[in-house]
Amino acid sequence: MKQLEYAFMAKLAIHIKEQLRKGVKKPYKTIIDVSFGDPHKAGVKPLTFARQVIAACTYPKLMNSDKLPLDAKQRAQWLLDRCPGQSVGSYTATAGIPETVHKISAFITRRDGGAPSDPKNIFITAGSQWALMNILNVLVNKQASPRTGVLTPAPGHDKAVLSIVGMGGETIPYYLTEEQGWALQVEELQRALDSAQGVCKPVALYVINPGNPAGHVQSRKSIQEVIRFVSEKRLFLLADEVYQDCVQGENTEFVSYKRVLNEMGPPFSETVELASFHSVSKSVMGECGLRCGYVELVNVDPAVMKHIFTLFSKGSCSPVLGQIALDVMINPPQPGDPSYTLYNQETQHIRDMLIQNAKRVYEVVNSLPGLSCQPVDGGAFAFPRVFLPPKAIKKAKDLGMEPDTFYSVRLLEEAGVFVRPGCGYKQKKDTYHIRFCIMTPRDMMDELLGRLTSFHRKFMMDFA
Amino acid sequence: MKQLEYAFMAKLAIHIKEQLRKGVKKPYKTIIDVSFGDPHKAGVKPLTFARQVIAACTYPKLMNSDKLPLDAKQRAQWLLDRCPGQSVGSYTATAGIPETVHKISAFITRRDGGAPSDPKNIFITAGSQWALMNILNVLVNKQASPRTGVLTPAPGHDKAVLSIVGMGGETIPYYLTEEQGWALQVEELQRALDSAQGVCKPVALYVINPGNPAGHVQSRKSIQEVIRFVSEKRLFLLADEVYQDCVQGENTEFVSYKRVLNEMGPPFSETVELASFHSVSKSVMGECGLRCGYVELVNVDPAVMKHIFTLFSKGSCSPVLGQIALDVMINPPQPGDPSYTLYNQETQHIRDMLIQNAKRVYEVVNSLPGLSCQPVDGGAFAFPRVFLPPKAIKKAKDLGMEPDTFYSVRLLEEAGVFVRPGCGYKQKKDTYHIRFCIMTPRDMMDELLGRLTSFHRKFMMDFA
Repeated sequence: MKQLEYAFMAKLAIHIKEQLRKGVKKPYKTIIDVSFGDPHKAGVKPLTFARQVIAACTYPKLMNSDKLPLDAKQRAQWLLDRCPGQSVGSYTATAGIPETVHKISAFITRRDGGAPSDPKNIFITAGSQWALMNILNVLVNKQASPRTGVLTPAPGHDKAVLSIVGMGGETIPYYLTEEQGWALQVEELQRALDSAQGVCKPVALYVINPGNPAGHVQSRKSIQEVIRFVSEKRLFLLADEVYQDCVQGENTEFVSYKRVLNEMGPPFSETVELASFHSVSKSVMGECGLRCGYVELVNVDPAVMKHIFTLFSKGSCSPVLGQIALDVMINPPQPGDPSYTLYNQETQHIRDMLIQNAKRVYEVVNSLPGLSCQPVDGGAFAFPRVFLPPKAIKKAKDLGMEPDTFYSVRLLEEAGVFVRPGCGYKQKKDTYHIRFCIMTPRDMMDELLGRLTSFHRKFMMDFA
Repeated sequence: MKQLEYAFMAKLAIHIKEQLRKGVKKPYKTIIDVSFGDPHKAGVKPLTFARQVIAACTYPKLMNSDKLPLDAKQRAQWLLDRCPGQSVGSYTATAGIPETVHKISAFITRRDGGAPSDPKNIFITAGSQWALMNILNVLVNKQASPRTGVLTPAPGHDKAVLSIVGMGGETIPYYLTEEQGWALQVEELQRALDSAQGVCKPVALYVINPGNPAGHVQSRKSIQEVIRFVSEKRLFLLADEVYQDCVQGENTEFVSYKRVLNEMGPPFSETVELASFHSVSKSVMGECGLRCGYVELVNVDPAVMKHIFTLFSKGSCSPVLGQIALDVMINPPQPGDPSYTLYNQETQHIRDMLIQNAKRVYEVVNSLPGLSCQPVDGGAFAFPRVFLPPKAIKKAKDLGMEPDTFYSVRLLEEAGVFVRPGCGYKQKKDTYHIRFCIMTPRDMMDELLGRLTSFHRKFMMDFA
């Protein structure tokens, strides 16, 4: 149902674009599409170094070109030497180019203050969602009665939920506390777990940190509490950490579940089963189209590991050019390298843009009556709450729509801003939200906020 | 078990490579790895035009470079204009870049003598195996009792079989007739179907044409028979046609299932449910590492189509750079284009190589006592039969090995030739085979056949 509403909006967007192309007069000239977490689509530029390395790997004659800096060519040659037949057109090992897997392991250890990481537990996959689905496939027993349950955040992005349900499992929503910046509270985890009694058998907890769509970043203390909880309840911990390099809140930092697990020491560090996901799509790199990510598995039962490995092996290797982007992401140019300055400028530019956009959204949205927004400390999405007037809610229901879908459809039609309604992400009863990507150039964000402001004021008056 | 044997061989190959690197004396200097269908790994060169277009799409500054021909730059620009945000780093539509999907549809109509093709029924996917798995996921009812059955060729490549079994389905092998060039006989399909009675409920027939590993190419008449059979038995037809541009037998041509279905007219052309698979990996293009293929669905029940679409949508889009290779494959440079001559030379070179290699393999293998080989009319593999002496069979069994694994391990150890044993592909009881890729440069094939000849002669003497 929620899916259908989104499909309806996507069709509407195409229809409006078609109208604009035909010259139909609208109060706007283009649609601003922030319905997806897709930075390049929203106008962010790819990182030059990554693209140069991929281009040189693809067409090695470019190694002789003066159009590419030396370190890009050297990295490309190093990677090609590790591809069978020196071609990115060959299959790599199933888990990925072995040397890149080793570099990921070293990256994790660096990131996590020295926490040990075993390359044998790392798999490069065709995107983090693909990896998550395969692991869920092992965890969710399709024949089980009662069904297998997985605790999932509300709000939380919908792909995981769809996968679990599609596999015959049950999702058990736990609600993040909006008033406290979408904080994850362990009492709520307990409530959710209790609610599953007699319904399904919970086997795993899925967390998204930094949040999508909630935009929160968990503190070390919060992560410790979650780890204690899963340890006590013997739940497998699935940590979606794909926005780890998008942290824009002041005095906010990303701390990984793996790091905290290691810091907590035994028995936790030796027993809690953890899968942590990262991706080239959802980071500053923003390369969604290359379809590549990785998962690190920690403390996983060897029998389960074997199953997971079998499932990963079925799909051959992940796209090789995505693996190359991943190699760059976890091992960017270093001081002294020809590309160091540009790489840093470009990534810093994206980070500054995120910080600025997060601030602007917070200020503008909170200045509008009937809208409120928690600080977007991390991730790429704002998820403001819309306090819809009773008349608007009634009108939506008359039309057979969820109230925030009605608001979003109007926003799309009247202001050409394509956001997603909160009803697709699970939200507390009788609360309404919209989600939009804030990873856009600043001028586009200004334009978006301007359109939202005018639209919202008019909407609230129309339904006052 | 068969999987474990292959894993054992792969480990052995790594071990031998390590020894060679350390300077351990062997009768050979390198391993010839023809265990995979991976042309670039085996030394085949990528097609220049495809790589140029991908490089330019990845790093658009190359559009200004004189290193790339005009048509490569134009194609790249045309494709970029169809990527959201003009970046290959954005998600495309789930089914692929819409204009490329339309071009695939036109390609199919051209290939199939005017048979209609609807772009709505075509999905670009992350490899043909991925598409096949998703469709099997819809066809195989996991809860069904008796289990869902799928007729699969023997010999046939193992991924499909593993998928079906992994999903809780049952495979029903039908044997190709080796003595008649691995012909598919409809009486054998009937026998296989009968054998399923009381065991499982057959819902689909899986065919591989050109064959893998069998190397046969079905005639139009044979395809007609198969279509009549599935029509009568109401089976869903899964046609793996990924080797459609690898046809090397004299007076042999590839005819697609779709084409024959269309030629047969009603009721067949309007009722038989067909999924046909193609790929950038397994063709003359040989780009396994890019992970991209497509499937066309014909006459599929709308309710089933909806399920399939939902499954395809779960994984986001397929790798965009693979989609670009696909765009080139189904729409290569045309006469008059700057890249036309080179593209033709390169593809012709690969085709000539295949023709030569197929001939050489046939001659050499059939000249050796205890080995015999059917003509390799199509595909990329030879699958010769090995008539193992009883002493060799006994020795293998004493070691707890399948006899052809024993032969293959010896071939790897003593001659440095890495092939796969026939036991991994299902073969008639008490027959033994080896499979190897013939898509290799000619000098490597000569070396391979030389090594095989010496090894085989010695082996047969040792176990006489």
